[in-house]
Amino acid sequence: MLQVPEGYLFATVSAGLRYQKRDDLALILSNVPARAAAVFTKNKFQAAPILVAKKILEKKSRVRGILVNAGQANACTGETGYSNCCQTLQMVKRVFGLGEDDILPASTGVIGEQFELEKWEKAVPELKKTLGQTDPVRVARAIMTTDTFPKLSWKRVSLQAGEVTFLGFAKGAGMICPDMATMLGFVLCDAQIDGNWWREALKMAVDMSFNAITVDGDTSTNDCVFALANGASGVCVAQDEEDMIRETLKSICQDLAYQIVQDAEGGTKVIHIHVTGAKNKTQAELVARTIGHSLLVKTALYGQDPNWGRIVAALGRSGAEFNPDQVEVRIAGITIFAQGQPVNMDIDNIMARHLRKQDVHIQVSLGDGNGEYTLLSSDLTEEYVRINACYRT
Amino acid sequence: MLQVPEGYLFATVSAGLRYQKRDDLALILSNVPARAAAVFTKNKFQAAPILVAKKILEKKSRVRGILVNAGQANACTGETGYSNCCQTLQMVKRVFGLGEDDILPASTGVIGEQFELEKWEKAVPELKKTLGQTDPVRVARAIMTTDTFPKLSWKRVSLQAGEVTFLGFAKGAGMICPDMATMLGFVLCDAQIDGNWWREALKMAVDMSFNAITVDGDTSTNDCVFALANGASGVCVAQDEEDMIRETLKSICQDLAYQIVQDAEGGTKVIHIHVTGAKNKTQAELVARTIGHSLLVKTALYGQDPNWGRIVAALGRSGAEFNPDQVEVRIAGITIFAQGQPVNMDIDNIMARHLRKQDVHIQVSLGDGNGEYTLLSSDLTEEYVRINACYRT
Repeated sequence: MLQVPEGYLFATVSAGLRYQKRDDLALILSNVPARAAAVFTKNKFQAAPILVAKKILEKKSRVRGILVNAGQANACTGETGYSNCCQTLQMVKRVFGLGEDDILPASTGVIGEQFELEKWEKAVPELKKTLGQTDPVRVARAIMTTDTFPKLSWKRVSLQAGEVTFLGFAKGAGMICPDMATMLGFVLCDAQIDGNWWREALKMAVDMSFNAITVDGDTSTNDCVFALANGASGVCVAQDEEDMIRETLKSICQDLAYQIVQDAEGGTKVIHIHVTGAKNKTQAELVARTIGHSLLVKTALYGQDPNWGRIVAALGRSGAEFNPDQVEVRIAGITIFAQGQPVNMDIDNIMARHLRKQDVHIQVSLGDGNGEYTLLSSDLTEEYVRINACYRT
Repeated sequence: MLQVPEGYLFATVSAGLRYQKRDDLALILSNVPARAAAVFTKNKFQAAPILVAKKILEKKSRVRGILVNAGQANACTGETGYSNCCQTLQMVKRVFGLGEDDILPASTGVIGEQFELEKWEKAVPELKKTLGQTDPVRVARAIMTTDTFPKLSWKRVSLQAGEVTFLGFAKGAGMICPDMATMLGFVLCDAQIDGNWWREALKMAVDMSFNAITVDGDTSTNDCVFALANGASGVCVAQDEEDMIRETLKSICQDLAYQIVQDAEGGTKVIHIHVTGAKNKTQAELVARTIGHSLLVKTALYGQDPNWGRIVAALGRSGAEFNPDQVEVRIAGITIFAQGQPVNMDIDNIMARHLRKQDVHIQVSLGDGNGEYTLLSSDLTEEYVRINACYRT
């Protein structure tokens, strides 16, 4: 059963921004101002909603909610785009009677197009009518672009003062452009959280989840993750319980991140790349990313080919320091490369059943260092090329 | 007409190492020891022929030729592979009566397999019979793996003391594994070259040619480029002519590099990415590589889609420093993005005829810095995925 944290209401509407006959505008509204944390794209080109949300969070640590649309990214739209973003927020604040409270904007969709504000003027009052009538699944559906399924994750945690509930949403399936924005992630929680550790907790959670996945290595102008904690459960988080909250936030983010890779454009596999024995975490990450981005590794796994050579060649060019003779590569727990040479020449037959699975685990041990890193990647298929080559024609 | 430098003979034979009914073993032999330069793969996993060639060139600055086979890479083959490589060289030296002179080995093909020396024992005497009977085109064909056409380039240069001739060979079409080795390049020249500048000249030429192309971003265990100058023309290069020789070497390498991209696995386009106005060359290269490796840019160009958004998003995540408002992007000389926004919304119609061509030029101006870089890339097609996913099945 889907768990919903206390004190949040949802609204969705078909605003016809780009899609017809489906919801494309959603509001997540907290009854009271919620403590907010955010992580934004590092892309140099930042969409208007990213710039506006940053500005809001510079001034305030609490907001009332999140306004999100699909279909138009409001990126590369200059000053007009920025002003349009602010105006849509004003509309919502006026119609929903939010007074001085702020809401965070997020957009995903075609870049370079301006919002048509008349559509928003019509849609926002309709949005209000659905407040409290819409469930979270519809919100998750309303923010989809090329996603093939809505992405949700939830969890209940028992603290000394009572139970608190987490609910996360995500959208993402590879960075497709003009439906450019890769991913959005929102996590709601009804715990009462005091102090600034909520922001650090989100940063850590994102580092170990959304920042540790790759579909095609591209990032977007609109990526952002928001986490809200409104305290509506009445349950205050004690200091010795902060780690439990951090862990929960991380596991929600990891679950959502997994779903994004699972829904990768054209993808048929979730590749778990686990690197150990590196000199440090940075080196482990370098190796994991080089393997995870290698087109040859990605196409091999699509072809269910236990191609250790491509993995080894990718790590050889990763730039990480290691002794090639100490490298060990395992697929599905089976050692296929060690001491500079392939271990088992009948690997094709042994591996066949493991490579049919959706989840494929690649473990690379570089030596005796302490650095490790785990990355989720997808395979590369003809369908990915078709989606991305033919999208606009 | 194909120009052949003086004093080189060619031999090719079908040794049946992996391919049947086609030449797969070739020898390039200079009548006299030729000054040799080499550039090797930076991959941490290095094939036996790479290790052996390095060792030879540590001791000697002149060699008699190049022995190259296709079908087996002799990579990840341990000490046996190293010893096998040395033994094949010994066979050739014995059969061809080379005495103390050395030849450089190069291999391309399946990795992890050991040479069957009996095949070599049979093939090398046959190879000798063809010496002088084979033309360079057959050498270029003998080193092909997934290449669809042989790659040659030649040039004559007039110096004060007479004419000299350059002839280059290359193989490469994306790093395919088990046919793992991406590229080999050999340049022969009959000028008399004294001093060590020949090595630096090759390094520079490779940096601006083979190191400035990308098909899939993967490098191999077997990549190498050899350049020989045997002086057989009797033409000595004067000091003030060295630059002309450097330029010629560079242009031969660039022509061969272009052909590799032209023959990219599944590719339909050669994408010329020219970045200017960066703070320095390193930053320009960073941007060019990020764009050139972007799957979204590569699929868009395959789809003949003037997708400035993907180019802009790639450069935004490249890590280079620039002011987004100063960025200008041109495709086929037409400005499509400037001052943070798309310039022309009817770009699809305007660009259609340019994007049908094989060669597509993307120019990115980042600002007013002096750094620039040019990279050749290929597009990404369903055929690439098919080739690389289905290769072993």
